[in-house]
Amino acid sequence: MIVIMKPEATRAEIEAVIQRAGQMGCKPHPIYGENRTVVALVGDLTGVSREVFDEMNGVANTMRIQEQHKLTNRATRPDNTIIELPGTNIRIGSTEIIVMAGPCSVEGRSQIIENAIAVKEAGAKILRGGAFKPRTSPYDFQGLGEEGLKYLAEAREVTGLPIITEVMTVETLPMVAEYSDILQIGARNMQNYGLLQAVGKVNRPVMLKRGMSGLIKEWLMCAEYIASNGNYNIMLCERGIRTYETATRNTFDLNAIPVVKQSSHLPVVADPSHGTGYREYVPAMAKASVAAGADALILEVHPDPDKAASDGRQTMSVAEFAKLMHDLRRVAVAVDRFVGEAPSPVNVDELAELEALA
Amino acid sequence: MIVIMKPEATRAEIEAVIQRAGQMGCKPHPIYGENRTVVALVGDLTGVSREVFDEMNGVANTMRIQEQHKLTNRATRPDNTIIELPGTNIRIGSTEIIVMAGPCSVEGRSQIIENAIAVKEAGAKILRGGAFKPRTSPYDFQGLGEEGLKYLAEAREVTGLPIITEVMTVETLPMVAEYSDILQIGARNMQNYGLLQAVGKVNRPVMLKRGMSGLIKEWLMCAEYIASNGNYNIMLCERGIRTYETATRNTFDLNAIPVVKQSSHLPVVADPSHGTGYREYVPAMAKASVAAGADALILEVHPDPDKAASDGRQTMSVAEFAKLMHDLRRVAVAVDRFVGEAPSPVNVDELAELEALA
Amino acid sequence: MIVIMKPEATRAEIEAVIQRAGQMGCKPHPIYGENRTVVALVGDLTGVSREVFDEMNGVANTMRIQEQHKLTNRATRPDNTIIELPGTNIRIGSTEIIVMAGPCSVEGRSQIIENAIAVKEAGAKILRGGAFKPRTSPYDFQGLGEEGLKYLAEAREVTGLPIITEVMTVETLPMVAEYSDILQIGARNMQNYGLLQAVGKVNRPVMLKRGMSGLIKEWLMCAEYIASNGNYNIMLCERGIRTYETATRNTFDLNAIPVVKQSSHLPVVADPSHGTGYREYVPAMAKASVAAGADALILEVHPDPDKAASDGRQTMSVAEFAKLMHDLRRVAVAVDRFVGEAPSPVNVDELAELEALA
Amino acid sequence: MIVIMKPEATRAEIEAVIQRAGQMGCKPHPIYGENRTVVALVGDLTGVSREVFDEMNGVANTMRIQEQHKLTNRATRPDNTIIELPGTNIRIGSTEIIVMAGPCSVEGRSQIIENAIAVKEAGAKILRGGAFKPRTSPYDFQGLGEEGLKYLAEAREVTGLPIITEVMTVETLPMVAEYSDILQIGARNMQNYGLLQAVGKVNRPVMLKRGMSGLIKEWLMCAEYIASNGNYNIMLCERGIRTYETATRNTFDLNAIPVVKQSSHLPVVADPSHGTGYREYVPAMAKASVAAGADALILEVHPDPDKAASDGRQTMSVAEFAKLMHDLRRVAVAVDRFVGEAPSPVNVDELAELEALA
Repeated sequence: MIVIMKPEATRAEIEAVIQRAGQMGCKPHPIYGENRTVVALVGDLTGVSREVFDEMNGVANTMRIQEQHKLTNRATRPDNTIIELPGTNIRIGSTEIIVMAGPCSVEGRSQIIENAIAVKEAGAKILRGGAFKPRTSPYDFQGLGEEGLKYLAEAREVTGLPIITEVMTVETLPMVAEYSDILQIGARNMQNYGLLQAVGKVNRPVMLKRGMSGLIKEWLMCAEYIASNGNYNIMLCERGIRTYETATRNTFDLNAIPVVKQSSHLPVVADPSHGTGYREYVPAMAKASVAAGADALILEVHPDPDKAASDGRQTMSVAEFAKLMHDLRRVAVAVDRFVGEAPSPVNVDELAELEALA
Repeated sequence: MIVIMKPEATRAEIEAVIQRAGQMGCKPHPIYGENRTVVALVGDLTGVSREVFDEMNGVANTMRIQEQHKLTNRATRPDNTIIELPGTNIRIGSTEIIVMAGPCSVEGRSQIIENAIAVKEAGAKILRGGAFKPRTSPYDFQGLGEEGLKYLAEAREVTGLPIITEVMTVETLPMVAEYSDILQIGARNMQNYGLLQAVGKVNRPVMLKRGMSGLIKEWLMCAEYIASNGNYNIMLCERGIRTYETATRNTFDLNAIPVVKQSSHLPVVADPSHGTGYREYVPAMAKASVAAGADALILEVHPDPDKAASDGRQTMSVAEFAKLMHDLRRVAVAVDRFVGEAPSPVNVDELAELEALA
Repeated sequence: MIVIMKPEATRAEIEAVIQRAGQMGCKPHPIYGENRTVVALVGDLTGVSREVFDEMNGVANTMRIQEQHKLTNRATRPDNTIIELPGTNIRIGSTEIIVMAGPCSVEGRSQIIENAIAVKEAGAKILRGGAFKPRTSPYDFQGLGEEGLKYLAEAREVTGLPIITEVMTVETLPMVAEYSDILQIGARNMQNYGLLQAVGKVNRPVMLKRGMSGLIKEWLMCAEYIASNGNYNIMLCERGIRTYETATRNTFDLNAIPVVKQSSHLPVVADPSHGTGYREYVPAMAKASVAAGADALILEVHPDPDKAASDGRQTMSVAEFAKLMHDLRRVAVAVDRFVGEAPSPVNVDELAELEALA
Repeated sequence: MIVIMKPEATRAEIEAVIQRAGQMGCKPHPIYGENRTVVALVGDLTGVSREVFDEMNGVANTMRIQEQHKLTNRATRPDNTIIELPGTNIRIGSTEIIVMAGPCSVEGRSQIIENAIAVKEAGAKILRGGAFKPRTSPYDFQGLGEEGLKYLAEAREVTGLPIITEVMTVETLPMVAEYSDILQIGARNMQNYGLLQAVGKVNRPVMLKRGMSGLIKEWLMCAEYIASNGNYNIMLCERGIRTYETATRNTFDLNAIPVVKQSSHLPVVADPSHGTGYREYVPAMAKASVAAGADALILEVHPDPDKAASDGRQTMSVAEFAKLMHDLRRVAVAVDRFVGEAPSPVNVDELAELEALA
């Protein structure tokens, strides 16, 4: 159930609703929109009386949400959720389409710093890179761990780009949260409920990837696990599903974009690199993602893709990425969005110094 | 194997290659490109000597095609196939993105004519409508048959729009070919080899829909069945595949567009109506199709979608379609294509006359 | 709707019901069970009055069938359909589990005759072998055609084994029906409605394979296409569906057996050769099929599997087949069924004579 | 790589091999078979010299394992792994087929104790029941937690049945391991690598369920994650995969049984309750599982299925379960296995006392 407050409702009136809901045995979640606040009531609603709220000061009306996802439901919050990254002017879910780019794995200090500089110059706003890597084989390279996180933090210092990186376990969550700006939950962990609950209690935006066989409605429920623990800054990332077709690594399910947009207020990120698995298909599908309504893109880019430690086949070169950024700008404008202009070039001396260190 | 002729090769030299190939026991297919001609040799190649061709007059060189699809392979013909509809200026596979629109089924004379007028005014270039309908139940409406074809032909006369309609059996092929401008092979018949061979012998362009569980490489081989019987005017239509996801009717697999474009020279048509199954998702996915590189779109449009005899849930109203056409024009330009401007309105008196007949 | 006749209803009373139904505009199908007859009414039921039948002589009661499949519905006919092959004592759908075996393709005269003798000796009751082969590539071996059918007929003469073989087109149906005892509709043609309607008008039992992405309810509707044209002797053959898993050629969906058995009275055939695609998995899955309730098995067997013209990887040797037959007998007994004993050996002189001819 | 010791190799010789391998930088895993020991070397093999081992005392020969799964590979250990439960005579992976049964969730003290008594009387050897439940919605019943574990332990005391129950997080692992005899990893957590590594370090057998879209080779790699951490007592549980078919809740993939049996020495458990999702299909598929080679079954049984807190639709009544046990015994014998006879009835006074408590 949601209690919709009047636009002019005071903070005290909102608080009174929250308190009353708590007394009735359910869990109230205030959701502050641009125009008005709603208080979503979830959990055990058996003791909740709708009439009580209808008569409270500042309440416009009450509404039942039929779907299982409550806090993440478009009906609960008609406006889009916009996720702001502190200390930056980046807003995910707004008119600007945000591009995140970088290598699959952090392989070393100079690699990630150079990569960060390169993607920044081409127009990326956020740096991606894995320090903890979920690998099919226990014998494969599992990422650099904390060392990788430190290199990411250095790359941020040099470029100013915020960082998104994957968190795989509850144990390493505090460490990953300390170094990163956005926490990524990988496809294999979409339904790792312990991890979802844990990131729900952390003050960091979360990008939740769709599981390989995740139904869209299950995916929204996984976001609900995070939101119901208090963290509403959630992006949903489509990265391809598992089907019978083998011409692509996964079947990148762009349909998920309009479906999610209709039933939820959360921003949607598209990952055509994992979605298709082949770098030659990434430009077409990145443009299609923008046309379909994605709020952000996450792309694998590496200075020398064929030498990447993992996922080289789906990784673009810097030149391919720069070309794509140019094309994306045109498509974005055609759907009344924009992809931000590239910043002025990074200090070249700094770059030379870094190369000397490598 | 393909024999690539020199740009300046004479018709006699090409004929000589064809004749020699026939003597060696294989089947030669001359493919006339804009700059040069290639002769593709398919079938039994055991008696074929590459050296013989290398030494013939007018031959530039010879090449083996590794993939199973030969005639439809991009390597055989680096240029795009462009399908021209006789008596019109419509060219499918060129810079212009062609929009086909109309109802799922032809339901009656005035319905299809009005529908044709409406979609033409909004900018459609080809009229779609089913006269023979493949239905899951033998007890459901199976289409108007020849009567429906006649109404389609009338609609063409009134509007000038060429017609695309489905052919389901070899027996009805002559009849359908007589009335229609493009033959549609439905998803259920993708691997109906008897039907493929039959349309391969008919002088009509064919739009081959991907089967519900068709691998892209199988789909190309089905096109090869048509081409190897002599009909090279083939479009491939992506219409969604069957996966575990139920939020959409099918999983519209846009990835197929760049995959097919890379490995074949045939034009690709996108069908977001069947692909998603819900009209509210069609605009996003139609725009995404254009951004991904589709050469044409096929859309279900009906003056009163909720009263359509079939597939109403995925059918757009005329107003929705007109709005989409406007949006598509912008996206097309952003990828260096265009969607043709709407023609001048149809004669209003004619329309009134038709309404009187209804 | 079905009209259930009393056990003692006379033929005249049944005829009266049929006639009355016809007058009401629907299509009546009398289904003669062991204990009683029902008349199923399909097609346009708008003019049908239930009360009229309730009051007719010989009528026990009337019942609506909710599901879309009417004639093939278990509710219409609670007893199992048993298909008898004329001139033999073979009854498919009864307590005996019938094993069909033979090569994927008929490759030559002596090959098929030797193969027939071998599988008969091991206990097979029906000979399988393809004369018309649906192949992914138009350039691959398409089967021997009528020549192959003649060899099959010869093999039947030598061994007495009835023949099952695939029919691919309406044009070749009369020819295939002339030579064969059971018509096979392949997976690719499950929804080739023209072909289904045609075999529905032929007096030959039909084995309808499930399409690669056929829903069970669609599969039953395809059987309904056959039955509604007058041919009720239909077996449903599970042969594996297309999923993301690649360890097996298809995902052999044994669950279909109890599902179909519950909702239809038609016999179910299991094809673990295509279902798994690897001969080493066939024995386990053949035994599982019997345990799950299959009425018949169809198995690919070849004297020299690695030299088979097609599908060698999933084809068992004669020795493996003989061993499996022995194991199947034990499992059959454990589920109150039986697999018939092997017949006495074929005349050895005859065999030598055949080998001389080869 | 594996180092195969001679049958007569001494413990000192085995230890020498282990020590030498450690010095070379890889991780040695001794696997003690009935006839001989092998030492599997995994991890970083770059410094490993095959010749060194070939010349050591007690070494028969060395062998490379091509597949990614090393410790769980059939080639590493040709004998079946047999998992013995301490304090019982239960051996999973041996000739006896072990049946685990019980409710989906532990709902209360008397419920689980009565259920345990009932399934024991019908012949179950292990009690299943969930105390921590992975639920799609965060607002649904999540299980009784530790309270549920205590009731399970009580049920074990009353009946003597060992307990299998799910562990969902690393944090609750010590608690769950304390109360239970077998740890279950659920389908959603198949690739929760943190959890796999943690159960790999615990001295409890693990049953690893296949993920909803888990490839068999990925599933084996997940088992490898457990084994490479030191715990070799792993069972693989097939519970159905996600496909396009909706007639069953999942597509229970019995093919996985022969595939896994061929490539791994680990025992396989079949879960037809989740596999099909409907209790009426469970008997057929349970029998098929035994025929296909399953080493154990896990079945949902509840005294009053329609009142079960979760999964009632797929839960059998006690009477249905008892009937099935009888049928399974017959099928098991037909494949040279057996399902143990039911034990003598539980003390009736004890039962009455329990009922008084309920």
